Amino acid sequence: MKKMINRPEDYVNEMLEGLYIAHPDLLTYVADDYRCVVTTKKKEGKVGLVTGGGSGHLPLFLGYVGEGMLDGCAVGDVFQSPSSEQILEITRTVNSGAGVLYIYGNYNGDIFNFDMAAEMAGFEDGIRVETVVAGEDVASAGPAAPGEKNTRRGVAGILFVYKCAGAAADEMLPLDEVKRIAEKAAANVRTMGVALTACVVPRVGKPGFVIAEDEMEIGMGIHGETGIRRGKLEPADQIVVEMLDQIVADLPYQKGDEVAVLINGLGATPLDEQYIITRKVDSCLKEKGITPKRYYVGEFATSLEMAGVSISLLRLDEELKKYLFAPARTPFFRE
Amino acid sequence: MKKMINRPEDYVNEMLEGLYIAHPDLLTYVADDYRCVVTTKKKEGKVGLVTGGGSGHLPLFLGYVGEGMLDGCAVGDVFQSPSSEQILEITRTVNSGAGVLYIYGNYNGDIFNFDMAAEMAGFEDGIRVETVVAGEDVASAGPAAPGEKNTRRGVAGILFVYKCAGAAADEMLPLDEVKRIAEKAAANVRTMGVALTACVVPRVGKPGFVIAEDEMEIGMGIHGETGIRRGKLEPADQIVVEMLDQIVADLPYQKGDEVAVLINGLGATPLDEQYIITRKVDSCLKEKGITPKRYYVGEFATSLEMAGVSISLLRLDEELKKYLFAPARTPFFRE
Repeated sequence: MKKMINRPEDYVNEMLEGLYIAHPDLLTYVADDYRCVVTTKKKEGKVGLVTGGGSGHLPLFLGYVGEGMLDGCAVGDVFQSPSSEQILEITRTVNSGAGVLYIYGNYNGDIFNFDMAAEMAGFEDGIRVETVVAGEDVASAGPAAPGEKNTRRGVAGILFVYKCAGAAADEMLPLDEVKRIAEKAAANVRTMGVALTACVVPRVGKPGFVIAEDEMEIGMGIHGETGIRRGKLEPADQIVVEMLDQIVADLPYQKGDEVAVLINGLGATPLDEQYIITRKVDSCLKEKGITPKRYYVGEFATSLEMAGVSISLLRLDEELKKYLFAPARTPFFRE
Repeated sequence: MKKMINRPEDYVNEMLEGLYIAHPDLLTYVADDYRCVVTTKKKEGKVGLVTGGGSGHLPLFLGYVGEGMLDGCAVGDVFQSPSSEQILEITRTVNSGAGVLYIYGNYNGDIFNFDMAAEMAGFEDGIRVETVVAGEDVASAGPAAPGEKNTRRGVAGILFVYKCAGAAADEMLPLDEVKRIAEKAAANVRTMGVALTACVVPRVGKPGFVIAEDEMEIGMGIHGETGIRRGKLEPADQIVVEMLDQIVADLPYQKGDEVAVLINGLGATPLDEQYIITRKVDSCLKEKGITPKRYYVGEFATSLEMAGVSISLLRLDEELKKYLFAPARTPFFRE
């Protein structure tokens, strides 16, 4: 394990301590617990937006707490869900009478703990909590049949859900409206990733799997979950064509659509490569008659030191454009 | 070589194409050459600020072209200087009568080409050009004796020089004043880095050196130049103490000083680790009676997929604070 860290058991708390030192204007914590992150910019009367999830994905999840996006984030151990008690503490802090919306990725541990926190918040504090579970990784499962539960993993595309819901809440819309907009963003985003190397959970100390020196895995999840296929590493353009074809066909995104595009580095991939990919994504979309309105390129949702990228598309309409491009200020996202 | 690229010979131009696609509001190019990057926000009558250098360091160098920082950047091949002709084309474009200031890192190829461009700009176009060469890597050489040339390499700390000079130019100060402020920032910044892994130049296809699985190299340069010592990988806190002691002693930074701190990931190091380092830097500085006024944490000057970090300090006074915290908007730096 080649990491600049101290004791693996201190990894998350020391990382959080650094975050509070670097971003005192935006982030603080409650309940004497570094893992209960809340905004310093609480806006009275606004719907509170809360997320959470395992560590190891910075800037996800806590990096989007601030102004115009999220109000709180419960932080788990690396790749582990936070506890329901932590979520509850944050819920109590960010609620200011208009209710709270939970937005998090589609993982069983998170669902269990957020559901329990929602129940406790309602029962003990009379706080109304609604939930939007984001799951847009087209490689992880087929689309949900009508009336069926979505079993897709939530990955980088959750950024768009945070941004649109955050702007809607910031406009002082009521909980049902903020939830509707979050659901709309979630319904219009699709993602697929490709991994070139594995990552190492600090407490484990060695990679959970290995990708050979000349191989890649298309569709791998952000914790190293198995993807669609493993094969020889191909030129960037070929990888983009394969991924984008599956993403576009899934919703489907169609000729005439406008989209926002997220090219997300998984941790160890240089920005250079992310821009080489941007170039091919742009020409592929335009060939399909789809108009990219805005690119977001960089590290937004990582997997520790994994090399690879994911591509996310968000289909836009006038309402989503308005919220996506509204002002926001967080440690890792500015608009 | 495990990279998501196409032909190595297209690496730089395809990367640039992606950058223009993603940032059309801020970046464009002149002379029909992707490698001649200029701002879309030219401000008439302002001193033009021009930088340049090899590719492979994104966000350096071109990522700081925009509003309130740089006006142009000449882009070389990976780890290679741009040509004097490219620098000259940019100089002509960004000049609007107030002259041009070159700010770049202390490397022989860059010095040669920038000097030649300055001479041509003066001789052929009558443009007054001044130069500030940034070299602050304390691991690369001893401090220059009075009257001697600085032989230290320029690394991540150049960000502070860009920012302060950019804000001074944006305030419409004359060339001599902008140069004075750039020199002042350059004189008050010091950096040291540590590398855990090597990087691979695309056209070469294999690492130029190897750092063993249990080793690190303290003081390594951003092209893999030899550092101060190679040794067993140590806990993060110990690495920080060693680096910071040398940085602080060099200027020296003293009790009562206020500093800005740049914790810079070299490419493959997760943000988590950068924040763990931030935490220790903060406590070490405070122990020494030095006050960190602002932290900048993330990837600002990378070496392709190298794992490692650098730490930079900028000693602040009221004038530098004013320019450092003035507004700026570029693809990779917002204030």
